[in-house]
Amino acid sequence: MGTAPTQCPSGITASFHAKFDNRTEFSSSSFPSTLNLTKLSFHPNSKGLVNRIGSLPDIDDLFWEKVPTPLLDVVESPIHLKSLSIKVCIMSLPMLNIDAYGLSILNKSLALQELKLLADEIRLELSSTMSKTQSSFKASLAVVELTVALHYVFHTPVDKILWDAGEQTYAHKILTGRRFLMSTLRQKNGLSGYTSRAESEYDPFGAGHGCNSISAGLGMAVAQDIKGKRERVVTVINNTTTMAGQVYEAMSNAGYLDSNLIVILNDSHHALHPKIEEGPKTSINALSSTLSRIQSSKSFRKFREAAKDVTKKIGMGMHELAAKVDEYARGMMGPPGSTLFEELGLYYIGPVDGHNIEDLICVLQEVASLDSMGPVLIHVITEENQGSEADQKRGTVEQQQEGSSLNGIYAFSNEKDKDIVVVHAGMEMDPSLKLFRERFFDRFFDVGMAEQHAVTFSAGLSCGGLKPFCIIPSAFLQRAYDQVVHDVDRQSIPVRFVITSAGLVGSDGPLQCGAFDITFMSCLPNMIVMAASDEDELMNMVTTAAQIDDRPICFRYPRGALVMREYPIYVVEMLLRLEQVKFLLRVKMLLYLGMGQWFKTVSKLRPFFPSSVLV
Amino acid sequence: MGTAPTQCPSGITASFHAKFDNRTEFSSSSFPSTLNLTKLSFHPNSKGLVNRIGSLPDIDDLFWEKVPTPLLDVVESPIHLKSLSIKVCIMSLPMLNIDAYGLSILNKSLALQELKLLADEIRLELSSTMSKTQSSFKASLAVVELTVALHYVFHTPVDKILWDAGEQTYAHKILTGRRFLMSTLRQKNGLSGYTSRAESEYDPFGAGHGCNSISAGLGMAVAQDIKGKRERVVTVINNTTTMAGQVYEAMSNAGYLDSNLIVILNDSHHALHPKIEEGPKTSINALSSTLSRIQSSKSFRKFREAAKDVTKKIGMGMHELAAKVDEYARGMMGPPGSTLFEELGLYYIGPVDGHNIEDLICVLQEVASLDSMGPVLIHVITEENQGSEADQKRGTVEQQQEGSSLNGIYAFSNEKDKDIVVVHAGMEMDPSLKLFRERFFDRFFDVGMAEQHAVTFSAGLSCGGLKPFCIIPSAFLQRAYDQVVHDVDRQSIPVRFVITSAGLVGSDGPLQCGAFDITFMSCLPNMIVMAASDEDELMNMVTTAAQIDDRPICFRYPRGALVMREYPIYVVEMLLRLEQVKFLLRVKMLLYLGMGQWFKTVSKLRPFFPSSVLV
Repeated sequence: MGTAPTQCPSGITASFHAKFDNRTEFSSSSFPSTLNLTKLSFHPNSKGLVNRIGSLPDIDDLFWEKVPTPLLDVVESPIHLKSLSIKVCIMSLPMLNIDAYGLSILNKSLALQELKLLADEIRLELSSTMSKTQSSFKASLAVVELTVALHYVFHTPVDKILWDAGEQTYAHKILTGRRFLMSTLRQKNGLSGYTSRAESEYDPFGAGHGCNSISAGLGMAVAQDIKGKRERVVTVINNTTTMAGQVYEAMSNAGYLDSNLIVILNDSHHALHPKIEEGPKTSINALSSTLSRIQSSKSFRKFREAAKDVTKKIGMGMHELAAKVDEYARGMMGPPGSTLFEELGLYYIGPVDGHNIEDLICVLQEVASLDSMGPVLIHVITEENQGSEADQKRGTVEQQQEGSSLNGIYAFSNEKDKDIVVVHAGMEMDPSLKLFRERFFDRFFDVGMAEQHAVTFSAGLSCGGLKPFCIIPSAFLQRAYDQVVHDVDRQSIPVRFVITSAGLVGSDGPLQCGAFDITFMSCLPNMIVMAASDEDELMNMVTTAAQIDDRPICFRYPRGALVMREYPIYVVEMLLRLEQVKFLLRVKMLLYLGMGQWFKTVSKLRPFFPSSVLV
Repeated sequence: MGTAPTQCPSGITASFHAKFDNRTEFSSSSFPSTLNLTKLSFHPNSKGLVNRIGSLPDIDDLFWEKVPTPLLDVVESPIHLKSLSIKVCIMSLPMLNIDAYGLSILNKSLALQELKLLADEIRLELSSTMSKTQSSFKASLAVVELTVALHYVFHTPVDKILWDAGEQTYAHKILTGRRFLMSTLRQKNGLSGYTSRAESEYDPFGAGHGCNSISAGLGMAVAQDIKGKRERVVTVINNTTTMAGQVYEAMSNAGYLDSNLIVILNDSHHALHPKIEEGPKTSINALSSTLSRIQSSKSFRKFREAAKDVTKKIGMGMHELAAKVDEYARGMMGPPGSTLFEELGLYYIGPVDGHNIEDLICVLQEVASLDSMGPVLIHVITEENQGSEADQKRGTVEQQQEGSSLNGIYAFSNEKDKDIVVVHAGMEMDPSLKLFRERFFDRFFDVGMAEQHAVTFSAGLSCGGLKPFCIIPSAFLQRAYDQVVHDVDRQSIPVRFVITSAGLVGSDGPLQCGAFDITFMSCLPNMIVMAASDEDELMNMVTTAAQIDDRPICFRYPRGALVMREYPIYVVEMLLRLEQVKFLLRVKMLLYLGMGQWFKTVSKLRPFFPSSVLV
């Protein structure tokens, strides 16, 4: 967390600050000084936070073993952040201007220090509280400063902040009146692991599947334009979700509609797109910090707009050239990926150090102070590895638990068929699949959060003579439904769908629940649908799927531990398990018994009772 | 169709051509000199073209009123193109090299002339044949030269050409042994309006919904890498489909996997992304033609690779900078959008004049001759307005027919509610919607082929206090299913889905059939599902949907003409039609009668019998 020099571009004049100050006061006056929890009801259906959350935290959590957090204790809602009275931008002005405002240097340093301390306290609080729960809080630790800066600069809940990954929102939840309920996170009747409209007015949109925030934010921004409101919409995306196609659809449309929308790319160096992962990290230094500030400064934008106007008058060719020079000049300054956003129509600002609260506030205030700006993308670099040891430990334990429960899929790895390839889509990977990837690196394709592509890609692999297993969690297979219908089932291309996390998903909550796959897969004319009731069946289904090569087939299994079950042994199941009989012979016997048909008929009709589900 | 100077870059040496010639001979030898139609069965399920196509063309179409097409008459399959023996690239070499090959200038000019004539004949044939059918052939006319060049350079069906819009493939169908069946296009038991694996081995993948070709092509390319084959995969996308998110997912993955894949962007200036539409057209002149050739030349790529190796050794920072200079230098040369593809990992070549067969062949041969190239994007500019008058007339008539049949939706326009906004997604727009757009321009959002975004965007609009009607054809709503589930239904946000083209869709064929929407919408817990059985009901449903404001609602109606029907008049329907009663009063009466519940229950249970369907 290095602190870059705080020199703001000289283009910021006193008149701008006067305006800025007016704006702050005006906005503050429309807020209650303290937040009344029972009044949290902007959605007609919500009945207030306290009424809705049935689970209350353990009293031990409230009074014992607490890390001292004197600043956080006085922040009950985002409005209290503003009473810290820090004018970071003003502080960084030359001495003369500061004296004009009559503020002493001492006070300001203390105030900035307060915001930093607050961020540290939130980090401590997160580490101590979250380590007791089932949640991974690494992603939230990375955005603590960003969260503080956002709530300091913008006026939630009037201004809207949309997150598109639940794991990032825990600091946001702490700052928005849900601190005392954090220990109920992802518990029955407790706080949702994601943002939730029903839970708080500070959550303007629910996000469990990622990649929806720009679309929803753009809708809100356009609605405000139509209704003549002046609220600001900020959406935070991260580099996992930039793999999803919807983000490009949304950015392209945002660039076209030119509504005021602030998109913050929280770049924790996973992959902006996969190739960048290989390259060196974007350097965050004084230069890039300065550049971001110059780019975001009002005068630079004004200059740019003026230049555009001039060149527009000269003629289209010249205008186009000038725009291009501007774009590519900034492209040369910026990191890889910056022109991609510019091409899609968003004004790119960055990269900004996501742990330098001063820089963040300065850039956000500049952007917020612009009246008509069109869509802006602020590229913020954060480090996810700032997590505590406890979090890392928890991750390991969780992985081991999951690993032991998914032996069924490990059957892939034992498969001797050289044509078998695995395509994986989604956010996280089952540990058993990691084993497969290690053994058969060339036959494993992890496409990230790009389910649509994963399905059609599998169909292409199948056309090329391979046997693809396409592994997607039930809730995310919904995103590729058209591809399943059109690219696979309609053409009867043998793709094997492995539907993971089917049915109830315990602490992952209702947003990840895989409730609909049986319905939407069973109505397809060529698809064979299978549902495993125990681990033995699951392994048999893997084998069956590998053998059926004239039509698509899918099988589903729930999240969590599978148990072996005693059940009446059918002839077929006995056959499948006869390890001493050679593999091909077993397959022939199966085919002789018309197993394909058997599976199809029986599985389609049989209701699904997962033998064990974690709730 | 201007002919740019044919000067090839001097970097192409004789040794390269020797290699190229060997390759051509090798590939040609593996093909039969004439195509036996009954042997068209590379897919286990297909039983040959003649067996499958039950509808035969009218004998009048075969022998009378035919435009003379002497060249096309001898081309029964793509292999016959090669006997035209044009070495365009060789022709454009300096005189010295040409003499080394012992080819006279006269012969070569004649041969090139032949390919051009062939393209002209195909254009004539398309205009005369297609004007009799129900199909729009504008898109196919635009890619006649591209189709000829592709089939001349590549060796189908061993090499794969994937198209992602059916309307572009008619020239391809004519060249691949389906010419005599063209008059059965989009007829019952006739040729499919799209590519179809079951129809011909020259169609490696089916495409009815657009935007899937890169994903499928990448799958095939990777399968070939794994199987050690050396076939080439070419996918043709167009600027409508570049709006769809899946294309970005696929390109990003292609850039990462670095398989040999040739993506051709057929840019007919609709919109690369919407904003470019506003700008001036990319100039196609001698300079851009030369630049494309330089960029595609082997020596330039070799130089670039060598430069990369050198800078890699110097150090990562330097390497990054060099790559950037290269990228942005070409970005400055290229049109808007070029760096977008580069950022996604595709090597960009272009723009190439899509009506200059010589340029096309030269660039394609260069790209095809590279052994290890990774994914390449060739930007081809075509003009869609080269269509004949007949086509334009047909379009107008079709529009009028459709327009008269969709009066139900025109009810939108009569709505006085100022909060109503319309979001439209998909490829074509109903004429009645165009009326709405004209009247309420600020409240109409056409997002193009970006269904996922359309649904979440609608949810955002709804959160912002508006009443969005989201209009998507049934088959394309499948693409946004996850957004319907997660962003709308789960949060119970009142979005009104208007499902057009539900059920059978007549000549649009099985790929556009909206068969599954009742199933996949009815299983959602908060969704109200309605199906109109006649135009009156449809209008009532529009009103109902506008009034219900606490949950999502959808209604579906079929493609084609709706007719009024005599049916028992329920009290409710009478109420809805009482024009003299004030609107609000009618709504109150409806609510009093518990209409919301009525619609939900009745509509969910009532089977759907469209009163009239075009088959």
